[in-house]
Amino acid sequence: MKIDGKHYRSVWIEADGWSVGIIDQTRLPHRFELLRLANAGDCARAIKTMQTRGAPLIGAVAAYGLCLALREDASDEALDRAYTMLLATRPTAVNLRWALDAVRDAVRNRARGERVVAAYAKAKEICDDDVATCEAIGTHGLKLFEEAWAKKGKRGKLEVLTHCNAGWLATVDWGTALAPIYKAHDTGMPIHVWVDETRPRNQGAALTAWELGQHGVDHTVIVDNAGGHLMQRGKVDLCIVGTDRVTANGDVCNKIGTYLKALAAKDNGVPFYVGLPHSTIDWTLDDGMKIPIEERGAEEVTEIAGRVAGGAVTRVTVTPEASAAANYGFDVTPARLVTALVTERGVCPATREGLKGLYR
Amino acid sequence: MKIDGKHYRSVWIEADGWSVGIIDQTRLPHRFELLRLANAGDCARAIKTMQTRGAPLIGAVAAYGLCLALREDASDEALDRAYTMLLATRPTAVNLRWALDAVRDAVRNRARGERVVAAYAKAKEICDDDVATCEAIGTHGLKLFEEAWAKKGKRGKLEVLTHCNAGWLATVDWGTALAPIYKAHDTGMPIHVWVDETRPRNQGAALTAWELGQHGVDHTVIVDNAGGHLMQRGKVDLCIVGTDRVTANGDVCNKIGTYLKALAAKDNGVPFYVGLPHSTIDWTLDDGMKIPIEERGAEEVTEIAGRVAGGAVTRVTVTPEASAAANYGFDVTPARLVTALVTERGVCPATREGLKGLYR
Repeated sequence: MKIDGKHYRSVWIEADGWSVGIIDQTRLPHRFELLRLANAGDCARAIKTMQTRGAPLIGAVAAYGLCLALREDASDEALDRAYTMLLATRPTAVNLRWALDAVRDAVRNRARGERVVAAYAKAKEICDDDVATCEAIGTHGLKLFEEAWAKKGKRGKLEVLTHCNAGWLATVDWGTALAPIYKAHDTGMPIHVWVDETRPRNQGAALTAWELGQHGVDHTVIVDNAGGHLMQRGKVDLCIVGTDRVTANGDVCNKIGTYLKALAAKDNGVPFYVGLPHSTIDWTLDDGMKIPIEERGAEEVTEIAGRVAGGAVTRVTVTPEASAAANYGFDVTPARLVTALVTERGVCPATREGLKGLYR
Repeated sequence: MKIDGKHYRSVWIEADGWSVGIIDQTRLPHRFELLRLANAGDCARAIKTMQTRGAPLIGAVAAYGLCLALREDASDEALDRAYTMLLATRPTAVNLRWALDAVRDAVRNRARGERVVAAYAKAKEICDDDVATCEAIGTHGLKLFEEAWAKKGKRGKLEVLTHCNAGWLATVDWGTALAPIYKAHDTGMPIHVWVDETRPRNQGAALTAWELGQHGVDHTVIVDNAGGHLMQRGKVDLCIVGTDRVTANGDVCNKIGTYLKALAAKDNGVPFYVGLPHSTIDWTLDDGMKIPIEERGAEEVTEIAGRVAGGAVTRVTVTPEASAAANYGFDVTPARLVTALVTERGVCPATREGLKGLYR
């Protein structure tokens, strides 16, 4: 990913060789600020407050959280304590557990003196793998985009709708849903992205729009209500989203509102794709309705942050003082509404057989 | 309707006997401010900027706009000029044309000296009829609510989801979709309303939540993305919305995002009702896709108004400076997704035959 022409990842090791750097995503798109995480508590807080977010990325940051914990205390007890704390930050994305397990497994049978080095090596491997994985998702997704573009007679632009942010800010680099968009743009395909603003936290308006803008991809921000209308009027050629957890039967848990877009896509014959790495698959569940759905604070619904004239960022309250609000973070799109899953191993139907065909 | 215990309509004649009073709905829920409209231009501006809004209410205010125009100049030319100006304020709601036609027809064949009195009489009749009409919608809708409540075994609360604002702020009194809610609440039925915030203008979060709060109806504001999840999880017993135009075949044009909720209702077996007065039916169209969809300024998407600590109201920008935005005001819910239409004459299927059965 490039920001003002300079290459970044969404998580990195600082020049000191051990502390962890991230972009503070709660400041975007108004401010580009970096954060340094120096212990496991910093990592947990950054994940919980969504300074860093996106299913693959929180796995990577949590992995470094275990490294930082072991650096202070390499005992089993300290490892378990940090594991539990980091796992509790977000309940829905399965990548978090996957990454924590990977680091814990890499150090568990080692002597204390070897644990820190082994943990950092595993965390780096998770990050490097995520970059390669996301680029492969982009390559496989690009084929679908090229088919859609050919089907459209290569007229106008390929019109893509996405929800939330599944770009490089949600991963270590490239993104999942956005990787094929970047690939298509880079090959010279004329492409235009409808960006759902994605209330309550506006990851679309704040992050996806910013990412696409930094890369020069043509895009238009719309309210979450608008996608159905656009699909009815033939203004969307395909939808592609990311996911926080895919069950073994192909149900897709993703940011609240994804299900509504999938319904509209089905009703209008628009392909609905989901981009994901293997670490997002929860083989232990066979029904998306069993996934725990995170409920967050009501203030994310009642208050909205933005910049005022002059550039300062402030929060405004949009509801009456006496009104309650509820804030469900995710919903489940049943597999029957998903045209295909796009993984680093290729494209498959959103079925148990489809997934097993790619991951034996 | 009552505000702080005092009875109001959403439009009235001021104490001077001729100028028109409205509530400035762009200030809600943060400020309760009244506006005085003294000429047709004031009325057009108030409708266009949505200081007054809601399909039935803009018809009533436009009717008074013609009265004010005639008061200054009772010629045919002045009448036509004001008619054209007022009709051009909003393209989608058909009530606007219906009310303007009603006043014009009432004065056209009269001597100039009689026109002002006749126009005010017709405008008053439109308002009084709207109140009676909306109350009748409430009475008919209440029967559906009572059936749903009985079906639920009268356990917990009747859970209703609504989109945008179709309450007394959208009509002269009572509302369309909200009229049965007020009736049910007043009969003592335990009822809880999920209020879609309804981006971009937040009529749900700002107006519906405020209305329900003033009347003491239990409610929770949710983002527009959440309704599908709630229906999947059995947390919604029925949906009811208003409409800006219903075609002769039963297609429903309403605030952008309504279609997505209707899809989710259908997918989950949740009844989806639409409340409307006869003036909302467009007998000249037989396909909702032929209804002109208003596009409004992009700043309604990119900027959000709310109050800051201390109580002042300000606007914040949520998107990157370089990102474009699009703002479609309405979408069309195909008749096949509508369980029934609830009118002042009773409940009917969303079909040509259904509508004809009530309005021969």
